[in-house]
Amino acid sequence: MRPTEIQITNPDWVDSMVDYSSRYTDDEARVRLTIQLARENVLRRTGGPFGAAVFDDTGRLVGVGTNGVVRLRNSSAHAEIVALAMAQAAVGSFTLQNDGQPCHELFSSCEPCAMCLGATLWSGVTRVVFSAMREDATQSGFDEGPVFADSYRYLENRGITIERGRLRSEGAAVLKLYVEQGGPIYNP
Amino acid sequence: MRPTEIQITNPDWVDSMVDYSSRYTDDEARVRLTIQLARENVLRRTGGPFGAAVFDDTGRLVGVGTNGVVRLRNSSAHAEIVALAMAQAAVGSFTLQNDGQPCHELFSSCEPCAMCLGATLWSGVTRVVFSAMREDATQSGFDEGPVFADSYRYLENRGITIERGRLRSEGAAVLKLYVEQGGPIYNP
Repeated sequence: MRPTEIQITNPDWVDSMVDYSSRYTDDEARVRLTIQLARENVLRRTGGPFGAAVFDDTGRLVGVGTNGVVRLRNSSAHAEIVALAMAQAAVGSFTLQNDGQPCHELFSSCEPCAMCLGATLWSGVTRVVFSAMREDATQSGFDEGPVFADSYRYLENRGITIERGRLRSEGAAVLKLYVEQGGPIYNP
Repeated sequence: MRPTEIQITNPDWVDSMVDYSSRYTDDEARVRLTIQLARENVLRRTGGPFGAAVFDDTGRLVGVGTNGVVRLRNSSAHAEIVALAMAQAAVGSFTLQNDGQPCHELFSSCEPCAMCLGATLWSGVTRVVFSAMREDATQSGFDEGPVFADSYRYLENRGITIERGRLRSEGAAVLKLYVEQGGPIYNP
C-alpha cells in the first residue's frame, strides 16, 4: 500500500513535561522548557537534541515539538516544524497571527535551520528566541543549511524579532550530550 | 482537547491523476505532472497553485504533494514538503539517499520557497527541477522568503543539481489562474 497520510506526533513522554494551564512568565522559563524537551529527547533516545515551543504573548503554552526525524522517518520533522504545526492545530488556523488574538512567539533550544527559519516566516509568529547557536550545532556535526545575515534581515523586515543565544551554554550542553551518547547525526 | 497528532494528506482526487506503476520517462513528463497537480488543486479549490513530486532516477513516481496550507491549517504544508514526506514514507526512511537504492529527484511546479529549499537539502534528493520562477510567484502575490544565489550554491556544494524554469510558461499560467479565480494569498 502506498502511504496516503503522514502523521506527525511528539513522543508520549512530552505531555508529562509541559503545562498548558499555567503561564511561562518570562523568556528564561520559555527557553528552559525547550532545552528540557531537547535533553529529554536525547536521554530517552526518541530523537535529535532539539526542542521547540510556541507561546502566546501572555506566556500561555500553545504547542510543543521535539525533533522526530529518525523516529517519524521524516526529514522535515524538526522540533520547530512540529511545534508550529501543533500550535496551528491548537488555534485552528494556518497562521498564528489572527485579528483579535494574542501574538505568538517561537522558542527553540537551538538556532533554526534554513527550513525552520523559512517555516517561521510563514507561521505568523512575531518573535523567535533560541538558545544554542549555529556554531554549537555545527560543532556537534549538524548542518544548519543556507542561513545568512540577509536571511534574518528578511524576517526582521517583515516584523519578526529575533533573539539569539539565550541560556546558550545550557542549550549547547544538550548538543554535546547527544554526541557523547552516540546519537546519529542524520543528514551529515 | 489539545491536538497531539498532525495529519498531512493530499486531496482525494490526487490518486486519480498519478500513476505509480508506469515510468515518467523524461523531465518534461515529470514537470508536467507537477503542473497538472497544481492546476487541479486550483480548479478544485483544494489549495494553493503548487504541485510537487519525487521520482527515482528510473522515472518511477515515489511521492506527490499538493499545497494544503489552508485545507490542513498548516503553514508548512507546501507541495514540496508533502511530496518529500510521502516519498520518505514510501521508502520507509528519513532520507531518500540510501546505499544500493536509486537516487531521487524533486520536481515542482514552482521555485521552492526558503523553507522548501531547506527541506530539500535534508531530504536526500540529488536533483531539483522546477517550472515557474520566483518572479512568477511574486507577481501573483506569493512571498518566496529568504532565498539567495548563495542558498543555491549551498545546495550545489552538497551535490544537489538545480534546474530552473522548465515549461515555465505552463507553470506560471497556473499561478495566474489562481489569482484570476480569487484564490486566497495566505502569508502575504
